[in-house]
Amino acid sequence: MKSATGQCFQLSLFGESHGPAIGVVIQGLPPGLELDEKRMEKQMELRKPRGKISTQRHEADRPEIISGLFEGKTTGTPLCILIRNENVRSRDYSRLKSTPRPSHADYAAQIKYGGFQDYRGGGHFSGRITAPLVAAGAIFLQMLEARGILIGTHVLRIQHISDQPLAQDEETLRNQLLQLGNRYLACLSDLAAKDMEACIEQAQRRGDSVGGILESAVVGMPAGVGEPFFDSVESRLSHLLFSIGGLKGVEFGTGFGFADLCGSQANDGWTVREGRIQTLTNHNGGLNGGITNGMPILLRSVIKPTPSIYQPQSSVDLNTKEPVTLQIEGRHDPAIVHRARVVVDSVIAFGLADLLTERYGLNWWLEDSACGAD
Amino acid sequence: MKSATGQCFQLSLFGESHGPAIGVVIQGLPPGLELDEKRMEKQMELRKPRGKISTQRHEADRPEIISGLFEGKTTGTPLCILIRNENVRSRDYSRLKSTPRPSHADYAAQIKYGGFQDYRGGGHFSGRITAPLVAAGAIFLQMLEARGILIGTHVLRIQHISDQPLAQDEETLRNQLLQLGNRYLACLSDLAAKDMEACIEQAQRRGDSVGGILESAVVGMPAGVGEPFFDSVESRLSHLLFSIGGLKGVEFGTGFGFADLCGSQANDGWTVREGRIQTLTNHNGGLNGGITNGMPILLRSVIKPTPSIYQPQSSVDLNTKEPVTLQIEGRHDPAIVHRARVVVDSVIAFGLADLLTERYGLNWWLEDSACGAD
Amino acid sequence: MKSATGQCFQLSLFGESHGPAIGVVIQGLPPGLELDEKRMEKQMELRKPRGKISTQRHEADRPEIISGLFEGKTTGTPLCILIRNENVRSRDYSRLKSTPRPSHADYAAQIKYGGFQDYRGGGHFSGRITAPLVAAGAIFLQMLEARGILIGTHVLRIQHISDQPLAQDEETLRNQLLQLGNRYLACLSDLAAKDMEACIEQAQRRGDSVGGILESAVVGMPAGVGEPFFDSVESRLSHLLFSIGGLKGVEFGTGFGFADLCGSQANDGWTVREGRIQTLTNHNGGLNGGITNGMPILLRSVIKPTPSIYQPQSSVDLNTKEPVTLQIEGRHDPAIVHRARVVVDSVIAFGLADLLTERYGLNWWLEDSACGAD
Amino acid sequence: MKSATGQCFQLSLFGESHGPAIGVVIQGLPPGLELDEKRMEKQMELRKPRGKISTQRHEADRPEIISGLFEGKTTGTPLCILIRNENVRSRDYSRLKSTPRPSHADYAAQIKYGGFQDYRGGGHFSGRITAPLVAAGAIFLQMLEARGILIGTHVLRIQHISDQPLAQDEETLRNQLLQLGNRYLACLSDLAAKDMEACIEQAQRRGDSVGGILESAVVGMPAGVGEPFFDSVESRLSHLLFSIGGLKGVEFGTGFGFADLCGSQANDGWTVREGRIQTLTNHNGGLNGGITNGMPILLRSVIKPTPSIYQPQSSVDLNTKEPVTLQIEGRHDPAIVHRARVVVDSVIAFGLADLLTERYGLNWWLEDSACGAD
Repeated sequence: MKSATGQCFQLSLFGESHGPAIGVVIQGLPPGLELDEKRMEKQMELRKPRGKISTQRHEADRPEIISGLFEGKTTGTPLCILIRNENVRSRDYSRLKSTPRPSHADYAAQIKYGGFQDYRGGGHFSGRITAPLVAAGAIFLQMLEARGILIGTHVLRIQHISDQPLAQDEETLRNQLLQLGNRYLACLSDLAAKDMEACIEQAQRRGDSVGGILESAVVGMPAGVGEPFFDSVESRLSHLLFSIGGLKGVEFGTGFGFADLCGSQANDGWTVREGRIQTLTNHNGGLNGGITNGMPILLRSVIKPTPSIYQPQSSVDLNTKEPVTLQIEGRHDPAIVHRARVVVDSVIAFGLADLLTERYGLNWWLEDSACGAD
Repeated sequence: MKSATGQCFQLSLFGESHGPAIGVVIQGLPPGLELDEKRMEKQMELRKPRGKISTQRHEADRPEIISGLFEGKTTGTPLCILIRNENVRSRDYSRLKSTPRPSHADYAAQIKYGGFQDYRGGGHFSGRITAPLVAAGAIFLQMLEARGILIGTHVLRIQHISDQPLAQDEETLRNQLLQLGNRYLACLSDLAAKDMEACIEQAQRRGDSVGGILESAVVGMPAGVGEPFFDSVESRLSHLLFSIGGLKGVEFGTGFGFADLCGSQANDGWTVREGRIQTLTNHNGGLNGGITNGMPILLRSVIKPTPSIYQPQSSVDLNTKEPVTLQIEGRHDPAIVHRARVVVDSVIAFGLADLLTERYGLNWWLEDSACGAD
Repeated sequence: MKSATGQCFQLSLFGESHGPAIGVVIQGLPPGLELDEKRMEKQMELRKPRGKISTQRHEADRPEIISGLFEGKTTGTPLCILIRNENVRSRDYSRLKSTPRPSHADYAAQIKYGGFQDYRGGGHFSGRITAPLVAAGAIFLQMLEARGILIGTHVLRIQHISDQPLAQDEETLRNQLLQLGNRYLACLSDLAAKDMEACIEQAQRRGDSVGGILESAVVGMPAGVGEPFFDSVESRLSHLLFSIGGLKGVEFGTGFGFADLCGSQANDGWTVREGRIQTLTNHNGGLNGGITNGMPILLRSVIKPTPSIYQPQSSVDLNTKEPVTLQIEGRHDPAIVHRARVVVDSVIAFGLADLLTERYGLNWWLEDSACGAD
Repeated sequence: MKSATGQCFQLSLFGESHGPAIGVVIQGLPPGLELDEKRMEKQMELRKPRGKISTQRHEADRPEIISGLFEGKTTGTPLCILIRNENVRSRDYSRLKSTPRPSHADYAAQIKYGGFQDYRGGGHFSGRITAPLVAAGAIFLQMLEARGILIGTHVLRIQHISDQPLAQDEETLRNQLLQLGNRYLACLSDLAAKDMEACIEQAQRRGDSVGGILESAVVGMPAGVGEPFFDSVESRLSHLLFSIGGLKGVEFGTGFGFADLCGSQANDGWTVREGRIQTLTNHNGGLNGGITNGMPILLRSVIKPTPSIYQPQSSVDLNTKEPVTLQIEGRHDPAIVHRARVVVDSVIAFGLADLLTERYGLNWWLEDSACGAD
């Protein structure tokens, strides 16, 4: 349903880039959760632009909790988070209305909303709308972590520069995710991170932009979660991931690599490790038949290069239908892949928390020993 | 919602591989559509196993319409399609309950359903459940075609063998989609098709299996369709695509290829062709900000190798937690990628028809000149 | 969503009065429930027409379970119930299309479906569609009964003849509900039942019809169930109740009687009985703020007189817009209130089972001691 | 879904009585609607407490539009309305946690939310939460009025004092609804209004409270709107109406009066008036088979006496399970039925606007001549 999503929990997003505020209403949270505001602050911090590799629009992005929190704990009734837009530059954006920027939503939005959309700074299509998503995500990440479920994402690739892939072994993987938690341009290898940073800065100097691939993992998910036929884990997570502006591909486990494998190479045989049923390999990324099998969930997503570049581009005047050359101005990100990382973590957290509640019920979050279904 | 999906229209699937019948209830169809039964028959035919490259379980798969059709036209009330299971072999499947097959849903389902799932032939997880989906899809394909919207999919790659990619130019693309409509192992190049067929037969002889990549296109979609934030076209289509068993990756437009491009290379500049606003390139696969921009929708999806292979595999006995060697018997597909093609078309058709109705209303399907919103 | 409903569970109804079959798909059932087929049979029996007080169309109404049941137990995947239409009389119904029957759906359906609806015997609007609802309801009643939750309904009033109201005291109430379970025209007082039966027979002889009031109660519901703001227990139950054809009013507890009471008379004071928190009176029908308070849920609903009567009535010819006198023929019920009783029980059972799952999770149905949340 | 509702449009409510603000997010509005702020102001004014017949807590209740409005027109993206809580008295409410007030949600909420609910002033259960509902309702009322659809409600009865019922004749009815629009304690008869006011003041002096019956009508609805089976107009409206705190009964047309009528008395014969198909009577309140038939929609709802009274009442201490006598303090309404009127209008407006969109599509609101389906 448009800017609202979820089955047991629901997020309802609102706001525009240049309006007074943006925010989100979260429906269905369990009551009595002690909100870790530091956790939320940290997530917001990781999403903020920093240095030359991000936009120069700096917002405080302090989430204000309007409802659903009482004496530091969730009430179980709707929790609304409001984030003020403070650093809005008064500029004339009206040209965007008639001259769509390449690979932006301008033209599609113009047709869909008949010209009534708030076009300033992308309006509701602005990347700013992911700020309340990250604030909401922090709550779900905290809930999952309390149940031993850890989510993390690193930048696997930017422009031919690759980080080392995440480990297959669960113990190592858990440590890697913990390490990534505090990094800004999050790579496992410091060298890769430096190269990527240099690459983004170079693009920025050229007035150009770059995209990249994010690799995510989830450890600690119990087996048996997911709702086939249409609500497979892959379905629910991809639905959320593809909501993120500029995200154009999602693959689970071996993903597109499956095309060149035989079944005898691709199948994940079963084994027993320390009394637990596990697979020998994890080509399926922890998901069989759309349901978790207890192995780490592995997925990759691709973010296209930021479409706002400072080079002259081909556009048309929608009124006259004449070709025009467009020169974009203002403050823009030469890359968003490093900032999108926490957005990806946030929607994965929301998606899995929702599926866990569908499977185990709301009380699961309140019990001492979770995952009673195993 | 589990085995039901859709916003304006709804599909509710039911059935198991070895039960009396499988089927689907379609809610919300417009009244007065003359059902093209030949169209449905053709789609069912394209999904059926043929030759050595498919399973030897042959089912008539005749869709029986139980409700919602009166004097050859839809009534506007729920349309139920029933398909009998006729060629069911009586075999002892109970071993599957305690000895999960690698990369199948057996173990995950065992945990989720506590052992009460119908495990015979995969039960509700069987590929057979896609038969009613294809029957339903035929109705939505017919509706879209009547509005000038054409959907098609070909096998782009199987095991290092590649078909030529779909054309960029809309006219050529439309012709390609029409050609593909009648092919079984659907490639643009006959040579590629033959090589792929040989490759699958080889795998079948080895008791092995293969996967592959499907490339799909949609021409004729009006601009302005899609429901950001959470119901982008990518979100809705990927949600449906990832419901298909064995489908492990989806990318739109240039997809994962975006990682190595700069914005100046990746951006789709605007132009005017024959009075219509179009893009110079189509890296975004017809979708900006989650909304159609009037260009062809382009997407690729990957199907993993069929997990049912005839070689000895590692499994465990769930009761004793001891390792066992599993030897799969029965009738299985050495590849499903060629049969999955029409399933992919079916869910894309459903997803787009649902989004079009959300945008233009139910009457749109009944009007003489569609797409009045432009 | 049209002919589908539910949050954790979902019913998707299909079928028409004169089509080959009617049925329902139930999504989301917990796995491992042993289906009590006798229970379902009994419910179907109570819905069937009997004697002169019902229609002379007699159908076997044997529910055939197509999917979702394996070795006598639910699988957790969709359960489809099919009921054949067997006693269909070939008659010319086409006049209904142009000459709407008073107080029937004919005209409204004609406008909504543009004349494409199956008008034979009311089509999808026929009371027959409640047959699969009763079959589905039997499953939910069985689930609730296993958790100590009992639902029952009696005919409180038909045409100035009143049965005694249900008891306030929970123990007596539980016994009353058990007694009602086996009665056809279900009254607490045999005398009232006889008078009502005579009244319906009289109406039948006059070619007329009657309506009536049903009173329902639920005992054993745990406190704390219901989802404010918009999913109050009253909201969810009334939504389902008003789906029943001819049902035109619903009130909870003292209902419309509240209009003449002061707060000091209407308030339900709190007390402690045998260690349990209870109310001294139950004007609120077990519901405060839309949430159960542990007291019996009490509600009344009204069924209008069956619109099919054998007296000449005013209609219009929709083609010529001329007034015409309509004489209804065929087989019709002089009252449905006594048959509607089990339909009411069925939708209440579905609604409460759905809300209980939303509150406690799917596992609640499988646990030894339910209602762990208290 | 809890505090969110709607199929094509969605309301997501948030806030508590004593938090910083309350509000609502509206999803799915058509773009380009010029918002009539005066209309919204007027509705807010009618909901505000006035004189001795209402609470003495006075709030400015100025709706602040945070998003979804640009240059005075809706953008088509989520519209968020925020209303500050300004007149909050610092008091110790903690006793409410352990000593539930009779007929309030206190105990039920305590069990549901485990004591974590914000109990100050009723928290999310406070009548204040209807303020954003009225603000949202003003938008839908405005949209309907622009299409010729008028909604109005009057106080039909308070404590044996009755207003005259609404007219049957559509022209008179439309005039009555227009008159009612500006009245505070809205009756057709000034005398009845005065008597009711005196009755409420008397109750207030006694420290008591009263309830009442509201009668609502809708004129101008096109025929053919409503979504059987489960989404009948009655189902959707009652779902919304029963969300309103203290509303305990809903009946359509003749409602509970049907119980004493025969079919020959109750049936609404068809006729033609000025070329339009109409009914001779309107016992069905404009709804046949759950679908509008073009006649005025008529419904009545009952509001129970406000549970907050100033007389000593029976309660229990939830910790000790001992009986206690409760004396409620603070500022409370001796009646809410006169203020609830605009809340009832608001939810009816939302419900019908949602159903109209489901039937005719979003563009219907933007077209010059609406109701193209006829």
